[in-house]
Amino acid sequence: MNYLQSNANTNDTICALATPAGSGAIALVRMSGKQSLEVAMQLFQPASNQLTTETIKSHQQYFGKIMDGDKTLDEVLLTYFKAPHSYTGEDSVEISCHGSEYIQRRLIEILLAKGIRFAEAGEFTMRAFLNGKIDLSQAEAVADLIASESKTAHSMAMNQMRGGFSEKISELRTQLLNFVSLIELELDFSEEDVEFANREELNQLIIDLKKELAELIASFQFGNVIKQGIPVAIIGKPNVGKSTLLNALLNEEKAIVSDIPGTTRDSIEDTIVIEGYRFRFIDTAGLRHSEDTIENMGIERTYEKIEQASIILYICDMGTADPESLEDVLKEFRNYIQDKDKHFILVANKIDLLAEAPAHLQEILELETIFVSAKRKENIHLLAETLVSKVKEKSISGNIIISNSRHYEALQNALDSIQLVEQGFKNNLPTDLIAIDLHQALHHLGTITGEVTTDEILGNIFGKFCIGK
Amino acid sequence: MNYLQSNANTNDTICALATPAGSGAIALVRMSGKQSLEVAMQLFQPASNQLTTETIKSHQQYFGKIMDGDKTLDEVLLTYFKAPHSYTGEDSVEISCHGSEYIQRRLIEILLAKGIRFAEAGEFTMRAFLNGKIDLSQAEAVADLIASESKTAHSMAMNQMRGGFSEKISELRTQLLNFVSLIELELDFSEEDVEFANREELNQLIIDLKKELAELIASFQFGNVIKQGIPVAIIGKPNVGKSTLLNALLNEEKAIVSDIPGTTRDSIEDTIVIEGYRFRFIDTAGLRHSEDTIENMGIERTYEKIEQASIILYICDMGTADPESLEDVLKEFRNYIQDKDKHFILVANKIDLLAEAPAHLQEILELETIFVSAKRKENIHLLAETLVSKVKEKSISGNIIISNSRHYEALQNALDSIQLVEQGFKNNLPTDLIAIDLHQALHHLGTITGEVTTDEILGNIFGKFCIGK
Repeated sequence: MNYLQSNANTNDTICALATPAGSGAIALVRMSGKQSLEVAMQLFQPASNQLTTETIKSHQQYFGKIMDGDKTLDEVLLTYFKAPHSYTGEDSVEISCHGSEYIQRRLIEILLAKGIRFAEAGEFTMRAFLNGKIDLSQAEAVADLIASESKTAHSMAMNQMRGGFSEKISELRTQLLNFVSLIELELDFSEEDVEFANREELNQLIIDLKKELAELIASFQFGNVIKQGIPVAIIGKPNVGKSTLLNALLNEEKAIVSDIPGTTRDSIEDTIVIEGYRFRFIDTAGLRHSEDTIENMGIERTYEKIEQASIILYICDMGTADPESLEDVLKEFRNYIQDKDKHFILVANKIDLLAEAPAHLQEILELETIFVSAKRKENIHLLAETLVSKVKEKSISGNIIISNSRHYEALQNALDSIQLVEQGFKNNLPTDLIAIDLHQALHHLGTITGEVTTDEILGNIFGKFCIGK
Repeated sequence: MNYLQSNANTNDTICALATPAGSGAIALVRMSGKQSLEVAMQLFQPASNQLTTETIKSHQQYFGKIMDGDKTLDEVLLTYFKAPHSYTGEDSVEISCHGSEYIQRRLIEILLAKGIRFAEAGEFTMRAFLNGKIDLSQAEAVADLIASESKTAHSMAMNQMRGGFSEKISELRTQLLNFVSLIELELDFSEEDVEFANREELNQLIIDLKKELAELIASFQFGNVIKQGIPVAIIGKPNVGKSTLLNALLNEEKAIVSDIPGTTRDSIEDTIVIEGYRFRFIDTAGLRHSEDTIENMGIERTYEKIEQASIILYICDMGTADPESLEDVLKEFRNYIQDKDKHFILVANKIDLLAEAPAHLQEILELETIFVSAKRKENIHLLAETLVSKVKEKSISGNIIISNSRHYEALQNALDSIQLVEQGFKNNLPTDLIAIDLHQALHHLGTITGEVTTDEILGNIFGKFCIGK
């Protein structure tokens, strides 16, 4: 609420650095609002002197100098975007300058001195929403798009940004609205005891709505996992080769442009992207550093870790593993994961130390076992394929996947309301009471795309954006 | 040499990320070379379908989609810069996309798959040089401009980029060329024993050239200091308040846009920008962590540290300082710095612990003393002003300051050659021998702007650039 209070006045002009922080060849400073062009032209000395606020063309890049008093701050390219043909829907100006920290800072300082306000996080996108350029779920997709590090997270965000999810919600709302208008027609004629709405059709509609809402809700766990990275717990005794295995997996990945920083492996979080899926390896350092075997520790602490994981890799060292104690652990795990939506993969490492290929474990335990040599990079592709296959089982292609907890909650609330409507019909509640629940369902769906919104919702959404977007 | 060998073919088309690495609202990927437009239009689906490689206008921003096969990779703004009206002088395309790490990486991957080559460091600017858009010292200024973090470093780089230094060198070369042509005219008529060149005028020219070269050379130390930060050694016993003082100095600085990262204070290097000057505080941790007093250590190690410094701040604690031992140290310092181009400032900290203002130290030692309370932020502005005044004594306004060690070396070599010419005249050496030294001087000046260049020079210069510039 504070967020919107401080920004209630969207009549003012805002500015921010739009490119990532730090120094680089080029940086982009953007302005949006009525004063953008006027202020820009006060600072800008175009290489061709003819240019004025009257003659400047929209979407045209002009070369010239940005002046800091009587000195040249930088040679830049300036572009004017005439409202409503801009990202925000307002008059906007983008200045492409040299990416030095001094120039970036100084240019912003000069704009602030001219009465331009420093933008709050997400304020450009919020203005795009307020000016009707995009709906709320599309605005949220912009933030997801920027944050996306893997192909799947990117696809999900792009689909949402291009309106796939919005259309689905809009479709559900239209169905509900038809329903509501029929119900309300009855209310208008309530004294005449007429039933305009075909009860059977209404029941079918409720069943359909429940199904579609439930499907969207069910997609959340998967969507969230795609966004955050699929959690994989790697467990096993010390020195079984966890790090070597992670590095070997990293090498499996193809076509990495190594000159672009922040590619696939984050050394802090240990995440690896394989075939476009991001896997997040859960730190089980507590176990690794213990001298005790996992069996002796009663695997209590392991359970805490794997509770968060979708996939559990248990790594054992084929050179030193004691088959019997291993069997005990694995059986216990098997019982544990039986009812859970988790995958268990046994990784038998260091097969290079063995004379012949072992198979007895796999037979005894009926557990999926991959025999690898992390050191020699043998069979690593099998492990990578297995990891990906576990995720692909729930393909995201075609289906709408939700990944935003706000949407999840709104859909959950809408489903609750629909279930109340259903019960209302069953219990023959008066139509006006049923109408209240229907309106609730409409309200909850409306919060997703922003037909219904509050300052608090907007603050929560845009406050999480980066500044400059 | 490897650098240029690998890039000998500037007929191919290059691409790179031009904005700083990391995720942000917007990122810019640029291409330069003949294929730029053709490849861009293969991937780009403009919002208006009319656009073709024939109808696209230079410097116009077009909104549309970048396709990754049949999927949308991103919604972007694309700009075409028609040769020679681009940074490199070649056909160029800039794509302004969403700043996600995935999109940046994937877009580059797609371009590489289309046969575009990933640019080497500085290759865009090298092409600008090879195409005659800028000279070599201007190209170097681009790198300095991007790296500049303070107002003074920025001014110096901007002046150089706008050609101030190039003009100066060109002026010196013209004078030398006139000289050479006169001398060579004599050589052509050597058998007739004619003197076309007035010996007195020549001598005067040599004196002038020597003076101007010497001035430029002398500016290097200062220029380098401006670029790297003015080195300040803070020394003193433990707990005299070094950190508190640094923080207090930081607060003296005004108008910092705190939302822009990487502003003024680098916690690793302890640099602070005051009034546009960057001060780099030299780590004297070795002394600080010692339990011994600086006196007992024989101040040997301190000398090592202050050898690198332009300014030495000796901080003492007025609450606990023993005036007599302090006097001994300071006298020793005073003798030490006597013949050196260094400033010594005594900072008497913790004056809040004293009942009355002390003055005896200043009187006894005839050393500049600033009495402060870092804790209460008293008189910190005096210290800041003193630091700045020490630098301002050598004002950079108006004068050309060199900051590049390559230029320093070339000027030094040119001066050496000129001195050989001078000696040659004095010793009545044959004109043809003198001509050799004159040509050497011309050669060295020519390497600065790039009239004379080698692959090795180019490799050294552009190899230090960031990729994408």
